[in-house]
Amino acid sequence: MKTNHDLRLTVTLRLLDGEGRRRFGPGVAALLEEVREQRSLRAAAASMGMAYSKAWRIVHTAEEALGHKLLDSTIGGRHGGGAALTEEAEALLAAYRALREEVNAFAQERFKERFRDL
Amino acid sequence: MKTNHDLRLTVTLRLLDGEGRRRFGPGVAALLEEVREQRSLRAAAASMGMAYSKAWRIVHTAEEALGHKLLDSTIGGRHGGGAALTEEAEALLAAYRALREEVNAFAQERFKERFRDL
Repeated sequence: MKTNHDLRLTVTLRLLDGEGRRRFGPGVAALLEEVREQRSLRAAAASMGMAYSKAWRIVHTAEEALGHKLLDSTIGGRHGGGAALTEEAEALLAAYRALREEVNAFAQERFKERFRDL
Repeated sequence: MKTNHDLRLTVTLRLLDGEGRRRFGPGVAALLEEVREQRSLRAAAASMGMAYSKAWRIVHTAEEALGHKLLDSTIGGRHGGGAALTEEAEALLAAYRALREEVNAFAQERFKERFRDL
């Protein structure tokens, strides 16, 4: 067998709730990191080409499942205030990124091994 | 932080081509396994609630990227013949399932460790 070895492996990690619904994964993680950068959920959504209502729903759905806030809103200003990541969101992101890194390294290693002879 | 520990981790492995397009993953794997079961792509698609044209496209796209056939068609019969997995498809599926198993076990272990104190 001569499988095309230009194919590369990607690993996606997601947190699902009891009903199997996606609650946290690459999308929420990227959105939170963009909020950290932009200091605003609205600006983060815009820079990702995402409707604000969708970004809000993603964050809200994750918060509900996790049982804690991910964003601290700062009130006021004519642009409706900004947002910062909560301490819990930072800890979650750090754990998620570290886990992803570690699992990905393991997976790439094993992929090379298992797909070498295909 | 008191993250809800009813959340569970899922791991998705995908093969992407040079342009980052998805070429093989859980969807194709499940479809191939259903073809093996049903001995027909059309029957497999139907039992998965998928249009035959979509199933055909998924298989064709994967074959193109992998550089080998995944299905052997058997011609004839008034239902348009059946299909069987090629030897290469069986080897690929076995490697994919084994890799997924191994990476998942590793990920669940590290998840418990890294998310315990969140």
